[in-house]
This record gives sequence, C-alpha cells and structure tokens, in this order.
Amino acid sequence: MAFINENFLNLKENYLFIDIAKRLAAYREKNPEKQLIRMGIGDVTLPLAPIVVEAMKKGAEEMAHKETFKGYEDSGRGYLFLREAVAGYYKSFGVEIDPEEILISDGAKSDCGNIPDIFGEQNTVLITDPAYPVYVDSNVMGGRKVIYASSNEENGFAAMPDPNIKCDIIYLCSPNNPTGSVYTKAQLEEWVAYAKSQKAIIIFDSAYEAFIRDKSLPRSIFAVEGARECAIEICSLSKTAGFTGTRCGYTVIPKELTAYTADGCEVNVFKIWCRRQGSKFNGVSYPVQCAAAAVFSEEGLTQTRESIDYYMENARIMAETCDELGIKYTGGKNSPYIWLKCPRGMGSWEFFDYLLNEIQVVGTPGEGFGENGKGWFRLTAFGTKENTAEAMERLKKLIINN
Amino acid sequence: MAFINENFLNLKENYLFIDIAKRLAAYREKNPEKQLIRMGIGDVTLPLAPIVVEAMKKGAEEMAHKETFKGYEDSGRGYLFLREAVAGYYKSFGVEIDPEEILISDGAKSDCGNIPDIFGEQNTVLITDPAYPVYVDSNVMGGRKVIYASSNEENGFAAMPDPNIKCDIIYLCSPNNPTGSVYTKAQLEEWVAYAKSQKAIIIFDSAYEAFIRDKSLPRSIFAVEGARECAIEICSLSKTAGFTGTRCGYTVIPKELTAYTADGCEVNVFKIWCRRQGSKFNGVSYPVQCAAAAVFSEEGLTQTRESIDYYMENARIMAETCDELGIKYTGGKNSPYIWLKCPRGMGSWEFFDYLLNEIQVVGTPGEGFGENGKGWFRLTAFGTKENTAEAMERLKKLIINN
Repeated sequence: MAFINENFLNLKENYLFIDIAKRLAAYREKNPEKQLIRMGIGDVTLPLAPIVVEAMKKGAEEMAHKETFKGYEDSGRGYLFLREAVAGYYKSFGVEIDPEEILISDGAKSDCGNIPDIFGEQNTVLITDPAYPVYVDSNVMGGRKVIYASSNEENGFAAMPDPNIKCDIIYLCSPNNPTGSVYTKAQLEEWVAYAKSQKAIIIFDSAYEAFIRDKSLPRSIFAVEGARECAIEICSLSKTAGFTGTRCGYTVIPKELTAYTADGCEVNVFKIWCRRQGSKFNGVSYPVQCAAAAVFSEEGLTQTRESIDYYMENARIMAETCDELGIKYTGGKNSPYIWLKCPRGMGSWEFFDYLLNEIQVVGTPGEGFGENGKGWFRLTAFGTKENTAEAMERLKKLIINN
Repeated sequence: MAFINENFLNLKENYLFIDIAKRLAAYREKNPEKQLIRMGIGDVTLPLAPIVVEAMKKGAEEMAHKETFKGYEDSGRGYLFLREAVAGYYKSFGVEIDPEEILISDGAKSDCGNIPDIFGEQNTVLITDPAYPVYVDSNVMGGRKVIYASSNEENGFAAMPDPNIKCDIIYLCSPNNPTGSVYTKAQLEEWVAYAKSQKAIIIFDSAYEAFIRDKSLPRSIFAVEGARECAIEICSLSKTAGFTGTRCGYTVIPKELTAYTADGCEVNVFKIWCRRQGSKFNGVSYPVQCAAAAVFSEEGLTQTRESIDYYMENARIMAETCDELGIKYTGGKNSPYIWLKCPRGMGSWEFFDYLLNEIQVVGTPGEGFGENGKGWFRLTAFGTKENTAEAMERLKKLIINN
C-alpha cells in the first residue's frame, strides 16, 4: 500500500493569495468600471535587458548546430563561464567566492525548498516571523520542528538572535521579504557569532541584494567574517534581472562548511548537496545560462540597473508618501518592499478591503507571512511609475480626508 | 548543531563513470594517436530541430518587450499551451490525458528524483535490477527500504511481478535504460494488476517512448486499463527531441490517484504533488516551454522524428552486427540501447578493457546499473552513423579473428 508522507498533511493551507483573488473577483463583478492598481504581487513587470535576450537567442542558435550543440552538462552545477561571472559579481562588492563553490540552479525557490533534504529530521529550524512561506513549508514537509524569531515593530522587523534559544538551522533573508528591512553588518556578525556558538547553519536568502544602495549594508552573508564556516547563501536573478519567468539562480556553499552526524562526526555539506543534485537535478537550460551570464557583463549590469532604478524610484515615492502621512513602515530604501503599519489600528484584511473599496489599490495583508504580520501590510515597487504615483495620490487623499 | 541527513551516508558511491573516465585518461596518455569511438554515454549528439530553435528565440524575444514579457507562471505547472500540446501528443498514440493532469518540469530526472518526497518513509520500494541509478539513490536518500525485481537473460531483461512479494512503490522503465527491453501490453497489464492488488503505485519512466516503432507496444502506462488508479508517468523531451541540455519534461498524475495514511485514509496524490511543487519549484523557463511546445507541432514531430530515425539506424546496425556474431542482446529495436552479453564469459569490466585496448571502442559496463548487469554491456545508438558503422566493423574483425 503506497503511503503518503503525512508531514504534508501538517502544512497550513495558505489561503492568502486565493483569498485575495476571491475578494478581487467579487469587487470586479460589482464594480466592472473601476481600474485596480495592483501593488500586491512580488513579480517584476519590466522586460529582460536587451543584452540578456540577445545572449539567450545566441545560446538557442548554438543548439541548432551539431558543432555547438550542448547536451547534458557534465557536472549539472552550471557552466564555468556562468559560475565565473557570478564570482566576478560577488567580487564587485568585495566578496571573494571560488567559482567552484557556486552552484547554478533553476531559481532560488528550488534550492531554498530542496536544501532541507540534506539535513536530518532532528534539526530544530529557526525562522524569522514574518517570512517567505517556503522556509516554513519545506521544513514542515520534512518533519522538522520550526521555531520563530520575532521580527516586530520594536526591532524594526529585523529579528536578532536570543542566545538562550537553541537551534540547528537558521533562515535569514536580507533585504527582507516581506518587511523590506536590511541587516547591518554588525547585526549579521551577531547572527554569525550565534550560529557558530550553536554549530548551527544559516541559510541566507539574498534574493533582493541588488536593491541595496547603501554601501555600508552587506549584500552577502559572506561579507561577514566567519560566515564561511556557518552559512549557505541562496540568490536569484528573479529580482536582480527580471528572471521570474526565465528561471535562474545560484547557491553558494563554502567548501569548508560542515554539518554533523548524530554521533558528532563532521560531514562536508558541499559534497552532500552535490550528491543530492547529482541524483535529482540535471542542470539549467544552456540558453538560460547564457542569458544569466550576460546579466553579469558590464553592459548587462548597466542595463539591469536601469530597471532596478526604476523600481527604486517607485519605492521612494511610496516611502515619501508614508513619511508625509505619518504611516510607520520598514523597507522602501534598500528594498522593493514597503511594509507599513495599517493606520488607525486596522487589521491587515480590514486595511486590504479599505484600500480596495475606497481607492482601488491592491496590496498584501501582512498576516499572510506570519503571526507578526497582523496589522501590517505589504506594498511592492514592481508596478509602473504612473500607477505607483497615482496610488500614492489616492492614498494621501484617503488618509487626509478621513 | 546542524545535523546531516544520514541517509545520504548510506548511498553507494557510484564510481562507474569516474572509473570509465580514469581508464580512458590512462589509455589516452599511453596511446595519444588512437581515435576512440564513444558509445557509452546516454547523451544525444544531433542538434535541436529548426522549428524548436525558432520557437525558443521567439519566446526569448517576447521577454524583451513589456507587452509580451512573462514573469512568474501562475501555477508553476506549465503553460496551458504546452500542457495541451503534450495531451495532443498522447492522443496521437491513442492515450487520453486531461491537460490538467500534466505537469511540466525541468526534466524527468528532477521529477523522478523528487517524487519520493511525497511518499512516507515506511514504503517498500520495488525496483527492477538493472536500472537507472536515480530510482535507488533518491529512495535511499529518503530512508526507504529498496527491494529488487530481477531483470535477467531468462526473462529478456524485463522483470515481471512476483505476487508473493509485497511492496508499496514500483519503478518501471520501458523502453528500458539500460537494457533496451520493452514491455508488451500484456506484461504491463500484469504489472498494473499486481500494483492494484497491493494498492501500490507504479512510477513509470517513459523517457524512451519515442523510440517505439512497433505499434503493438505501449508507449505509455496509461495505454493499459486501470493504470489511472495506480500509476504516475514521468517523461522527458531529452531523448524525444534532444533536450538533454535544454531541459524540459512532464509528469502525468491522474486526478483519481490516491495514496494512504498509516491509518488507511485515502489522500489525493495530485494535490500533494502540487503542494510540493508549489513550495519547491517555480516552473520552467518560458522560452524553453515555447521550444517544447514546438516539438509537438506537426512540423516539430516530423523534424524530431528524423533525428530518432538516424539513431534507430545506428541501433539497427548494432543489432545486425550482434546477430551476425551470435552475441546475445536485448534492445536495439524499439530502443536506442543495445544491452549485450559479453562474449566468452567475460566480465563487464574485462570486456570494457578488451574493446578499449583492441578496437578503441568505449561502452558502459553493465554492472554499473545493478547486480544483474554483471557480464553485460551497454552500447548506445546516439553517436554518428559513420562511427557506429566503423565500431561495428572493428567488433566483427575482433570477434571473428580471435
């Protein structure tokens, strides 16, 4: 009799986006003439950079000829030209990574979801609350105990470690989704020291690093001394270069990183992950790898930076509006997200309905990301400038006149 | 303390391809002037079909413009245009599948490696021996007990079920890698009846279905009545259309398929797999999906069939040579593999060295695929016609003159 993995039955159904879709459908049916401004979805809207599209086409053309055709990639870890390009990108902000420690994936979500596979069920996993739901769900699927570190108004939605709490695996995301908060170097140093004191491993999600403009803020956990002995970094081209539908990411596992058997023997994490990927993954499409490498070329970085600048201008408009209105928020400065406190003590869903009904602006109720999101709300900078400005004008009128 | 998943330490190191590489390197160093003919690797060598490359470029171009840009795919299960194309392909050989039951992946290896995640650790997994190593390895990683069904000379390397053996999950691959054997409809009916009697689930790997030319042989487990209640099918464009480096596959999970909790409650498998993928996968690159859909167009099928015909001619030459030499083999007719019995009682590695040293032909020792591969040897049809013919001429001279 085929038995299901019953851990899946312990997952909370996340109705967040289904509920949003339902409420939008109901609203549209009643108000077919109203134009909605969508600031809820974490997806990009600007197209791929020209140099990236050209590189993908060139890669596709190579597949058309016997002499340049690419079959299985030997290692499945990514072509060296791309791993070197990623290493060069790290170097541009002062972090030295050996291309051999970089593993190319079909996106951060896959690696983020799959990496718990290589860790035992007995690990206690510490996740900040609120957080990207994949961290919790992938560990619940694996039967691991999940505990939370509170990100809240008092700590600027940047949870810090509590030395009295024991844990084995730690998830951090900076700049944070959904709160937009960014850890300082000193804060990450504290996390690294905490992880090392526990022999824990940090899974560091740096998907939004390209939005950091303040040079004093670390764009990688590996900007922190000692992180190589306790951290894995997972990053994505989704937000860096608009790859949400193109699919490419990378994971960095330092060669010296070790985990432990129950008996306390050290095991090399890089080798175990490669064994996992060797059996369960076969590399990223060659033309996509060509496109990804183009992102990290000089021209590619210039072109993709234009898109990020565009989104950051949206974030600036949103932050300025909140400042004007005296609405508390995190993010908006080195992040494409504004995480705001719902005015007048409204609940997340109450504020969602209020914005929808009064000014036809759609955001995301914070409680969809965890308990601490109650009473908070996420707006994203990934829309058009016109819509963002219009939404903020409407918000101003709404708050000032009511 | 971060604990490793110790199941990974129970994996057998598969030194097969490493050993082959070492022996080849040593041979080349001693014999730099000799030209090797490689018939060991299961990778394709012909380029993508023109219509497929054009579709990928067109998809890439769409990503360059705001109006046609594609971000996250809503479901992550594949665009409807591709799922409908796959359903149409199934229909062309008489199998009705609802596009809603088709899930697009970045390759059969990913789905094949990940699907055990949704099944409990208490399942006993039945795998034919010899087999594609991913079946065993992915289950060992998950801590499941693996038992074997013997494919051997007596049964034409097509293992059949033993009603006295209890199991929960069954892996079948037809046409088989590495043995090239193909199950008849009657044989698959027997497997389906066996699975149903045990409430077991068959994971059916149909990666080589495009090589079946005998119309009486089933190209899908779903050609068998009752299979919808007990089977999942995983297929790939890797061999169908040369996608080994382009990466796209598909998995079919009938909506009515159920597995069980330890208490015997039925759980819908499709829903659980979607939950897994929803948290750990974000869909296949849009231009790759465009390329994949082009494979199933009328012109695409014509163009890709030319490549398959080319490989099948190689297989025919190999089979004919074995016939002439009185070498026993399976495969070669509806399969790109020839699985041959090493002549004169030689061992797999002995025959490997013999072919390498005497005629500079490289194949794969059968024992790399399981115990029952001892004394057997795999040759692939994926080389050029000239090399294949030359290798067979050399083999004839070698065997006849010695």
